[in-house]
Amino acid sequence: MAAEIAEQPDVWRRFLADGADAGLAAAVAAIRAQQPRMVLLVARGTSDHAALYAKYLVEIELRLPAGLVSPSTMTAYGAQPDLRDVLMIGVSQSGGSPDLVRCLEVGRAGGALTVAVTNNAASALAAAAHHHVDVLAGAERAVAATKSYTAQLLALHELLMAVRGNPDGSVASLPDLGAALVARDAEIAALAVRYRFAQRLLTTGRGYSYATAREAALKLMETAYVSAQAFSGADLLHGPLALVEPQVPVLAVVAEGIGGDAMGATLARLRELDADVCAFGRADAVAAAATGIALPPGVPERLSPILEILPLQQLARHVAVDRGGDPDAPRGLRKITETL
Amino acid sequence: MAAEIAEQPDVWRRFLADGADAGLAAAVAAIRAQQPRMVLLVARGTSDHAALYAKYLVEIELRLPAGLVSPSTMTAYGAQPDLRDVLMIGVSQSGGSPDLVRCLEVGRAGGALTVAVTNNAASALAAAAHHHVDVLAGAERAVAATKSYTAQLLALHELLMAVRGNPDGSVASLPDLGAALVARDAEIAALAVRYRFAQRLLTTGRGYSYATAREAALKLMETAYVSAQAFSGADLLHGPLALVEPQVPVLAVVAEGIGGDAMGATLARLRELDADVCAFGRADAVAAAATGIALPPGVPERLSPILEILPLQQLARHVAVDRGGDPDAPRGLRKITETL
Repeated sequence: MAAEIAEQPDVWRRFLADGADAGLAAAVAAIRAQQPRMVLLVARGTSDHAALYAKYLVEIELRLPAGLVSPSTMTAYGAQPDLRDVLMIGVSQSGGSPDLVRCLEVGRAGGALTVAVTNNAASALAAAAHHHVDVLAGAERAVAATKSYTAQLLALHELLMAVRGNPDGSVASLPDLGAALVARDAEIAALAVRYRFAQRLLTTGRGYSYATAREAALKLMETAYVSAQAFSGADLLHGPLALVEPQVPVLAVVAEGIGGDAMGATLARLRELDADVCAFGRADAVAAAATGIALPPGVPERLSPILEILPLQQLARHVAVDRGGDPDAPRGLRKITETL
Repeated sequence: MAAEIAEQPDVWRRFLADGADAGLAAAVAAIRAQQPRMVLLVARGTSDHAALYAKYLVEIELRLPAGLVSPSTMTAYGAQPDLRDVLMIGVSQSGGSPDLVRCLEVGRAGGALTVAVTNNAASALAAAAHHHVDVLAGAERAVAATKSYTAQLLALHELLMAVRGNPDGSVASLPDLGAALVARDAEIAALAVRYRFAQRLLTTGRGYSYATAREAALKLMETAYVSAQAFSGADLLHGPLALVEPQVPVLAVVAEGIGGDAMGATLARLRELDADVCAFGRADAVAAAATGIALPPGVPERLSPILEILPLQQLARHVAVDRGGDPDAPRGLRKITETL
């Protein structure tokens, strides 16, 4: 897991250089020709958080309605919806889970244009879709997905921004910024000590960074066995705030931009409740929190999730190791999960 | 909260009798005239679980793609999507949260047909929508929503099944079945003792019952301050399963029908891990689990969520009271949460 975390900047560099070989151009051309009225995303686990990120890109940048499919409606319940004018994107590391393959088959039969985004060009999901985009992360061996996640984020960003048109080239700075973040591993190791005995934990973020909060919680669950719960900064105020007390640490992802600005009310409420907040992101939020990890300024908000998950992956790994666990092989899990 | 839990069968009886006054017919006629190609749902908190239930009804019964809107894209980010041919349904107890009102305004401006489903005909959300369906739950005073939730489920069921056509009349049995369930409060009180000192807990379900698992977790969080996490039976296998150990109880909702059948693989995996499972639902699942609450047989699966949440509301309340808490006024929360 440590090696795969550290490898991420190189993975991004490779995708940015070889994206043309990844199937991106053909998928972009097909989507632009289709002019979809709506986008459906299909995924499970870590990939579902990449899909959530893509949902924000679709709603904000493509100005189209988007939905995350509940796969069981198409598998167990046999729903065969009318999906003309719909773009369906399946996201999966392995491309091997039968339920996702079935969803893309149902989507294709229902008239959708289907695109698979996976780390395995030879997968069943890639074969089931009209187009395949390879995230080019290379073989991922740790059970907890890390490099395939940020590779999915980058591939989805490049796909959807190319569909929108006018890509701004700001992705080019990501590999160097990522390498600088990965190099701060000792700083994260020191932070991890703080959570050595935490049994419960909350993560929160808004906008694009909500995906980061969700993925950070999953990493903490599956490697360090912390009962980590993720809420959008707004949903946290609708009920789960009752969980907040000084003994339940909060990890808040606060990027520069609109989503981070919208976290203001949530952070203020957490302060009123004397919550123990660790902020990941902009300097002012880190300064106002009990502790935090400042992230590089000036990154466009929609790219922040690709960077801000790195210290959270490192944190999950350090907490797991500190607890005597093996983050490469979490109990109860297999690398490829096949659900029906 | 106890009074409002007990009141639910009467609330349903009233809605079934007075639905014509609730605005249902006009909304149904408008939706049928529109012939939507897609449905977007907008909600927060408990109402978001009613929206999730409605998403399954839309996908399975109406054979249309559906999505849950991320409100911040329309509020904070100012997205103005093209929503022609889209039906947008806003679900809210109070109808008062500014972000939901804004979403319906944006949806209406973008060409969507908008329907508000609330417990307050005089609310801003009702005014913002083309049509309003009143769930007729009466004033709800406890901070933790109970009767407004099942009233929303029933109203959404009646709305969407009327749009589909061929309603089967099976809702008529719900009030009596609900009254029999509410009367089993002592049985739930005895069960609650078991969870007196549980700090972490998982809930799970698939299909329609996934909404129940989500809502049960929220009730346990906001009243008893248990770190309760909900996962679909499939998503649980993608990572969170690592949390499962004998000290982390699992509440599994297993209805008769396809969703409950699809829980088979999840329940088998939980048994392999020696998980402590309490089953809510069909007799075979209850018999196979460590403990459980058997629910009345023969209920159509899509109606099960209206009944199966009752013992889980009661459980949350009993655990809260046993812990010396006040479920009517959970710490940190207000009855009407206004998010932007």
